[in-house]
Amino acid sequence: MSDHPVNPSVLVISAHAADFVWRAGGAIALSASKGAPVHVLCLSFGERGESQGLWKQDGMTLGRVKATRREQASAAAEVLGASIEFLDLGDYPLRVDEAAQDRIVSVMRERQPDVLLTHVPSDPYNRDHNLAHETTLLTRMVAQAHGHDRSTRPIGAAQVLQFEPHQPEVCGFVPDLLLDITPVFDRKVKAMQCMSGAQGHLVQYYTDLGVRRGVQAVRNGAPKTVTHAEAYQRTFPTVGEDLR
Amino acid sequence: MSDHPVNPSVLVISAHAADFVWRAGGAIALSASKGAPVHVLCLSFGERGESQGLWKQDGMTLGRVKATRREQASAAAEVLGASIEFLDLGDYPLRVDEAAQDRIVSVMRERQPDVLLTHVPSDPYNRDHNLAHETTLLTRMVAQAHGHDRSTRPIGAAQVLQFEPHQPEVCGFVPDLLLDITPVFDRKVKAMQCMSGAQGHLVQYYTDLGVRRGVQAVRNGAPKTVTHAEAYQRTFPTVGEDLR
Amino acid sequence: MSDHPVNPSVLVISAHAADFVWRAGGAIALSASKGAPVHVLCLSFGERGESQGLWKQDGMTLGRVKATRREQASAAAEVLGASIEFLDLGDYPLRVDEAAQDRIVSVMRERQPDVLLTHVPSDPYNRDHNLAHETTLLTRMVAQAHGHDRSTRPIGAAQVLQFEPHQPEVCGFVPDLLLDITPVFDRKVKAMQCMSGAQGHLVQYYTDLGVRRGVQAVRNGAPKTVTHAEAYQRTFPTVGEDLR
Amino acid sequence: MSDHPVNPSVLVISAHAADFVWRAGGAIALSASKGAPVHVLCLSFGERGESQGLWKQDGMTLGRVKATRREQASAAAEVLGASIEFLDLGDYPLRVDEAAQDRIVSVMRERQPDVLLTHVPSDPYNRDHNLAHETTLLTRMVAQAHGHDRSTRPIGAAQVLQFEPHQPEVCGFVPDLLLDITPVFDRKVKAMQCMSGAQGHLVQYYTDLGVRRGVQAVRNGAPKTVTHAEAYQRTFPTVGEDLR
Amino acid sequence: MSDHPVNPSVLVISAHAADFVWRAGGAIALSASKGAPVHVLCLSFGERGESQGLWKQDGMTLGRVKATRREQASAAAEVLGASIEFLDLGDYPLRVDEAAQDRIVSVMRERQPDVLLTHVPSDPYNRDHNLAHETTLLTRMVAQAHGHDRSTRPIGAAQVLQFEPHQPEVCGFVPDLLLDITPVFDRKVKAMQCMSGAQGHLVQYYTDLGVRRGVQAVRNGAPKTVTHAEAYQRTFPTVGEDLR
Amino acid sequence: MSDHPVNPSVLVISAHAADFVWRAGGAIALSASKGAPVHVLCLSFGERGESQGLWKQDGMTLGRVKATRREQASAAAEVLGASIEFLDLGDYPLRVDEAAQDRIVSVMRERQPDVLLTHVPSDPYNRDHNLAHETTLLTRMVAQAHGHDRSTRPIGAAQVLQFEPHQPEVCGFVPDLLLDITPVFDRKVKAMQCMSGAQGHLVQYYTDLGVRRGVQAVRNGAPKTVTHAEAYQRTFPTVGEDLR
Repeated sequence: MSDHPVNPSVLVISAHAADFVWRAGGAIALSASKGAPVHVLCLSFGERGESQGLWKQDGMTLGRVKATRREQASAAAEVLGASIEFLDLGDYPLRVDEAAQDRIVSVMRERQPDVLLTHVPSDPYNRDHNLAHETTLLTRMVAQAHGHDRSTRPIGAAQVLQFEPHQPEVCGFVPDLLLDITPVFDRKVKAMQCMSGAQGHLVQYYTDLGVRRGVQAVRNGAPKTVTHAEAYQRTFPTVGEDLR
Repeated sequence: MSDHPVNPSVLVISAHAADFVWRAGGAIALSASKGAPVHVLCLSFGERGESQGLWKQDGMTLGRVKATRREQASAAAEVLGASIEFLDLGDYPLRVDEAAQDRIVSVMRERQPDVLLTHVPSDPYNRDHNLAHETTLLTRMVAQAHGHDRSTRPIGAAQVLQFEPHQPEVCGFVPDLLLDITPVFDRKVKAMQCMSGAQGHLVQYYTDLGVRRGVQAVRNGAPKTVTHAEAYQRTFPTVGEDLR
Repeated sequence: MSDHPVNPSVLVISAHAADFVWRAGGAIALSASKGAPVHVLCLSFGERGESQGLWKQDGMTLGRVKATRREQASAAAEVLGASIEFLDLGDYPLRVDEAAQDRIVSVMRERQPDVLLTHVPSDPYNRDHNLAHETTLLTRMVAQAHGHDRSTRPIGAAQVLQFEPHQPEVCGFVPDLLLDITPVFDRKVKAMQCMSGAQGHLVQYYTDLGVRRGVQAVRNGAPKTVTHAEAYQRTFPTVGEDLR
Repeated sequence: MSDHPVNPSVLVISAHAADFVWRAGGAIALSASKGAPVHVLCLSFGERGESQGLWKQDGMTLGRVKATRREQASAAAEVLGASIEFLDLGDYPLRVDEAAQDRIVSVMRERQPDVLLTHVPSDPYNRDHNLAHETTLLTRMVAQAHGHDRSTRPIGAAQVLQFEPHQPEVCGFVPDLLLDITPVFDRKVKAMQCMSGAQGHLVQYYTDLGVRRGVQAVRNGAPKTVTHAEAYQRTFPTVGEDLR
Repeated sequence: MSDHPVNPSVLVISAHAADFVWRAGGAIALSASKGAPVHVLCLSFGERGESQGLWKQDGMTLGRVKATRREQASAAAEVLGASIEFLDLGDYPLRVDEAAQDRIVSVMRERQPDVLLTHVPSDPYNRDHNLAHETTLLTRMVAQAHGHDRSTRPIGAAQVLQFEPHQPEVCGFVPDLLLDITPVFDRKVKAMQCMSGAQGHLVQYYTDLGVRRGVQAVRNGAPKTVTHAEAYQRTFPTVGEDLR
Repeated sequence: MSDHPVNPSVLVISAHAADFVWRAGGAIALSASKGAPVHVLCLSFGERGESQGLWKQDGMTLGRVKATRREQASAAAEVLGASIEFLDLGDYPLRVDEAAQDRIVSVMRERQPDVLLTHVPSDPYNRDHNLAHETTLLTRMVAQAHGHDRSTRPIGAAQVLQFEPHQPEVCGFVPDLLLDITPVFDRKVKAMQCMSGAQGHLVQYYTDLGVRRGVQAVRNGAPKTVTHAEAYQRTFPTVGEDLR
């Protein structure tokens, strides 16, 4: 069906520099491995709130944390097969002003994504995640408007897939897509290891989570060869000719 | 991906003889047109509660209503390309006893469906619909059990798609699949006309609904050639390698 | 508008003999005071689970508890201006078999209610309440069926108003009607006093609740002369020509 | 009951210039036809995001789009019997600053509405709608405050009716009022036709929706003479003496 | 268990000067009576929207209202055993800018609260309450960040307890903690009386509510000596070694 | 506070013979290790639906499966420190008749539990779990009734803790208690190994889950020494004097 391009273009909107790795590394690697263009927009470096390991080092400064996080996230993106850019909007709290919104709209129009990946709408632990979600829906709407910036082309009705938060049930997250990432799980591990200076203990945690979601995928009908999965919640209905 | 068979086998569990036509006629015709086996299980004829037109005729009896409904539903199934059987369990209220459950389990094991279509779990207007839903989940569970009837083969983890109730919002129905039924909509109309002796005014109503869901499908990214759709709510997560 | 009869006929389906007094006494008295027919169906006497005071008396037997509850509830109904009948189906747990369902359908068809009052669908403390709700929706559906008992007349689309459970938030109860019962509150008090042998401490509790809901009614736009109210949750949308 | 004025004053807060026509044209015409004052506040012209037809014309500019939308919406309001004003706050995204909030509060205090009509709180497709909802609740609160602008009179506890979004289920919309707009449906059609330069294909769509909601009204107890309805969701409980 | 300090430090974030008294006076007095430090942050005085009684006095000015509210709230805090400060951010609507957020973060870091008390996330009547909730979660997140203000110490994972809004069901409030405030209820009454110049009619209302929640506490297993309680909804799971 | 006994008595109602081990083994061992009486009621052996490993053995019969499951579950209970009994009501589907309900009520009255552990109310994969939940609430209600079986003593308002289903989010499970089971995790492992003939692959799965919930417990304020936890959802509010 022509509404499902063979290689759907993917745009990831990540509140902090590492979120896209832990939460969507498999999806990114999977899409990229099929030849789809995948681009990651990091709204912040997670420099204040998600770089605890770096801050334990002597003489650490905000500038050095940001630089390190940029390097790590860039390396992770490369491993996954994605391009990446950083908006440096600040974290804890993230602030998204009108200029930042305009910039994101521009990226959307330039890249014409079929799928957007971002955070859940309501995470009581982390309001930066919520703002990334809200920003995604707002800028998607603007990027669709025919009267916005007549020199660029409006985007279509991109699906917004929400990736799994750290404590899914408390955030109201209900997975409706268990994505088989078995073929690319090794790449996700490598990408996670790129971030390990900052948050190394999470590699094992998210590896276990991948196995857990893989087991559940099999429980929901995937073949037994599926061993690792990532969970996503859709924001909009799917459309298609397939009865599933 | 091998977990998505090219021609998924479909089993429809319909509380009353006509429900499968109005609510899932497009899905049935679409699947059948691709060569998939589709079987309809009518738990009742809808003889008491959904045959108002027939009851207006002089000298109508319960037996004649049932016979007429059987003919009409059989004709509709044939138009759609599905086989059909009737359990005659009574309606308003529907009663599903252990023998009926066993029979449904047998059908499931015999047909090994990949997808089950049935009603929503909570319709305040129509408790027969709820019981059909509950029965589907219960018998699906039994049909999966390795220790049940060792002479037949357990089924896999079939998805359960809920079809749209008459007043979706009041029933808590949220569509997460807008199925493109454009190519088979003429067959759905013909099938609906088979039921028209009983509920003719509904043909226009469900045609308009098909258009409405078609417009929404386009709003969610379907190509503009999509003009008619049916809405479904999934009970379980989807699994797969597609980022959508 | 003709769909809102001047004196809507009311049928109350009460799990236990006293529920209708505490939870809907105001609505009953209000309707009756306007000349509307109001009938109360008590599915049980609440003899085991809601007669703690009686059971404290020496030599009490199930028969005597039932007789006392029948007298008290009958007196309360008379004070409120309603007729009453008792199905004696047992409580803790309530059991509603097919014969009981048929009896309730008969009452519905005989009385042609415009409004049904009953319990909420999900009270974790009291499953008898849930069954009364389920029974109401099931029998309402049967009573509407044209093919059921051709000798009596189907009922229309009666609204089902759920009355307030003891711990509303834990039961998912959200009031969408705050009914002004100020003019009849004295009658509700008298009716509650009829039940006081069994559950006297509740009179003050439900008087305070009446005040509480009255204050909230004023907060939602009622005139300040409103001092007492009862809360209800509708099961179905309202229809009408009024923009409110 | 005095809390239900014979001609309740209505204020409509519409995110874009056309929303009030498609979504509330019937309610507006109905209220106006009974002699009630109805005023429409358009927060924006919908110039960027909802004027696709106009943008297809050669040489179109933002100024011309706005002027055309102003003319069309003014004509539609006149047909419906309402006064109208435009705040020109911009769309896609809508921005509501403190001055705009103050202006809306002033309008509320001047007009003393009994009922406010606006959008739903959470529409994933259109964040301007959400902001219109939030703005309505915020300004309603301010307009009620006794210490705000002592020279004008606080408003009462106006009900907030949410009108139906384009994809109701995905927006969590549950209708609890099906408003009979049969007597004024011709006016709604004429008003919709005023907008047709911009969004002509929607006239049929919303006519079908009117029929659909009319059928559902009858299913919920309206007389069979009701052929068209609009759906609304209440934000607050109703209060009154009617058991419905 | 060491994660449950004997005297947990409490920080209350109150949208208006009186909210903490009506809604959390018992919790404050209870904690203080056990020797725990309790601090109240009033984001505003409630000068415009919650001082109706004061505004009825001749010649009242905004300055005098604020001064009176400050005195009353300070007296109430003293009765309850808590310290208090006022951020004077304005009410109806409340505005929380970045400087105010920073100030709240500083207070959190200075006081290292184990528990935060604040409003619910979604009150359709009062958006100031919602903003207080959002501000609490946002500043809690910042106060936890290791990279924020390296000169002060990050806080731990403080529980956020939401206190009961005026119309709990309409606000989606579900109590999951019924706090026994019997031993300190007299202090709560005295504290409420401190506010009585402004909102005297509420003392009786919240006394009745205390009794109501006390009755419910007993229904949920508290000893019968419990006569008064306050209801809270937790934002995060509890942790511990107790099976309850 | 006297409503929280030092050693709360625990009754576990397990749909199948193994559920209590995987889902509540830690809670059972923890309670037992403190000297509390813990009793497990297995409604069925899980002989048909949860004994896949046994059915793979040649010549297996229903009787042998049941006997093996009884041995394994009894061994597991002993390791955990609990007594156990089996009602042998059948599985896939579980059937709970009136005699079985009476038996469960008797056990409740005999053991006077402070806490009940059972399944969630709505698991779309496994309707036996739902029935176990419903049965627990129903029999709890009966066991509380003063008029039921005057020869035994009514129980108090026992909390009902729901244990974690296999796919928590799909079942609507939201943990509100993360129970620290670190000190007894080795016992839970041993108990799980007792079941391994039937479902050995689950030992690793539930060990990983224990770690996952342990990490989350620390995130919610538990000391870093907590390494393993089990998640529970409460059915009723907690009561107490602790502000947490």
